[in-house]
Amino acid sequence: MMVRRRARGVRATAANLQVCAGAGHALGIAFRALAAHGTRLLAVEDPSSPRMREIAAGTGLDVVALPCDGSGARAGVLPRLGADAVVVTPAHQYPLGVTLSPQRRGELLAWARSTGGIIVEDDYDGELRYDRQPVGALQALDPGRVIYVGTTSKSLAAALRVGWLVGPPQLTGQVAQVIQIINAWPSSLDQLALARFIETGMFDRHIRRMRGIYRQRRDLLVATLAQRAPQLQITGIAAGGHALVRLPPGGPGEHELVAKAALAGLAVDGLSGYRASGVPTDGREQPALVIGYGTPAGRSYRTAVAALGDFLRAAYTPP
Amino acid sequence: MMVRRRARGVRATAANLQVCAGAGHALGIAFRALAAHGTRLLAVEDPSSPRMREIAAGTGLDVVALPCDGSGARAGVLPRLGADAVVVTPAHQYPLGVTLSPQRRGELLAWARSTGGIIVEDDYDGELRYDRQPVGALQALDPGRVIYVGTTSKSLAAALRVGWLVGPPQLTGQVAQVIQIINAWPSSLDQLALARFIETGMFDRHIRRMRGIYRQRRDLLVATLAQRAPQLQITGIAAGGHALVRLPPGGPGEHELVAKAALAGLAVDGLSGYRASGVPTDGREQPALVIGYGTPAGRSYRTAVAALGDFLRAAYTPP
Repeated sequence: MMVRRRARGVRATAANLQVCAGAGHALGIAFRALAAHGTRLLAVEDPSSPRMREIAAGTGLDVVALPCDGSGARAGVLPRLGADAVVVTPAHQYPLGVTLSPQRRGELLAWARSTGGIIVEDDYDGELRYDRQPVGALQALDPGRVIYVGTTSKSLAAALRVGWLVGPPQLTGQVAQVIQIINAWPSSLDQLALARFIETGMFDRHIRRMRGIYRQRRDLLVATLAQRAPQLQITGIAAGGHALVRLPPGGPGEHELVAKAALAGLAVDGLSGYRASGVPTDGREQPALVIGYGTPAGRSYRTAVAALGDFLRAAYTPP
Repeated sequence: MMVRRRARGVRATAANLQVCAGAGHALGIAFRALAAHGTRLLAVEDPSSPRMREIAAGTGLDVVALPCDGSGARAGVLPRLGADAVVVTPAHQYPLGVTLSPQRRGELLAWARSTGGIIVEDDYDGELRYDRQPVGALQALDPGRVIYVGTTSKSLAAALRVGWLVGPPQLTGQVAQVIQIINAWPSSLDQLALARFIETGMFDRHIRRMRGIYRQRRDLLVATLAQRAPQLQITGIAAGGHALVRLPPGGPGEHELVAKAALAGLAVDGLSGYRASGVPTDGREQPALVIGYGTPAGRSYRTAVAALGDFLRAAYTPP
């Protein structure tokens, strides 16, 4: 059974769509298929998900950092990195929270076309945009040069362990081979339930509902920080489940703030943990916190945000 | 949450038990962990599952064939193969359908203890024994030298994609690392449902019920073949979901019989497809068919077995 849902222009057929046990599984398959296809050097966004880089390194690929700024991955740098492939989060850079600009999209695709490079599009939360319609998938612009990886982990439930991969024709053989070797498959029962959920329109209704809920959560976080710690600047688009909070110079550093927050029962991350390690960056990066607003559930969220506001106000109040 | 079910003596703790997305996923993790631990050469049973050997080869291990006979894997051959590890199906050799004899069990464990070798126990259908209580797991005899791999694919439903791995202490680090890299996980929803199924005793009831159903299916197959094609000999224990049918000399060969059966709408396998390829065997092997009796469902099974009986009678009737 194949259920079609026109999601952001992704061009998939029965031949190139592979349902996987989550996005991490799909990324591992994509990286291994690339390695089998001759890829040696993979460019990863800097900053990016440490888990994603761990998966890439585990497949034997060498990794090089592609710096990101307020317009997403700096695609213009790619030609001089010598990479055969690149993995990006164009809809919502993780963790910077920005969208890849139209110009950068063009540069990225031009690089892929001129060098034969492959782009892995990690679309982990592309449906969750709160300020406008979600941007289209990069894969829709050139299905022959992009491996698209989607998931229901952010949009529905990570517990479901359902993701998918849509690959370009020239990689179909390698993808099929890698899948057979890893031989991990998502539950058919869950896939059937998900297919029903999509067919009946309930998945789309769910997405619309979650957009409203997450938007409120994000708005509350923004308003609380603006009131309690106006020195801090929330950057990135209104999307997904995390916000990037830039820390002003002269205040406590990332490590100190994260450690103190943990003591106060607040789980926040420092941006430095997302840096592609061992790669020289230009050192101009402002420290920042990565704050997930998808949890805690229900009313506890309001209490948690208030506690975070109090904590940050205290941290930035001169003694 | 951890649900305990004393299954055939397997010794598992929260530290060494890993739930996987099916037995194939677990085997891939086991083989990769072995490779990381220094294993280069893996002995596989001859005959054995081609899929299993494909998974092993995909992890970069070299594979050598360990011949099997009516007492299971010929463990006494292991010392001269030079393997660092071996993967076996002791409860129900696949596809020969025999149990590893107590003497061979002893030889296998003695090999592992004296050489530092590791045994992967692929316990794909160990709960489904129809003539007596299932034999205990090999892992129970020496948890320090065995990686146990279990699954609900045969006992409950392959669609669930839930398997598990219990590893020896010295491999815990490698197993954890490989799991993070592959990053495929079974559905949490399905795991919770399965845990409830086990806790309430329904899983045990289900197993008992399935034993009765499969036993009847096997008995019908045996009786039909005895009546319609008495030249053929069903070997192996009353267990699992497949039977091995030895073909008499002088009749049609495996390939011919399998091809003709397919034309008659009957799916049977030839034993030669399970041979560990490229490995010299002693050539004395009698041709055989591997017949799965887990499908088709319900009443169609009786019709299918009758058709198989007719087909084999015709194949062995002199023209």
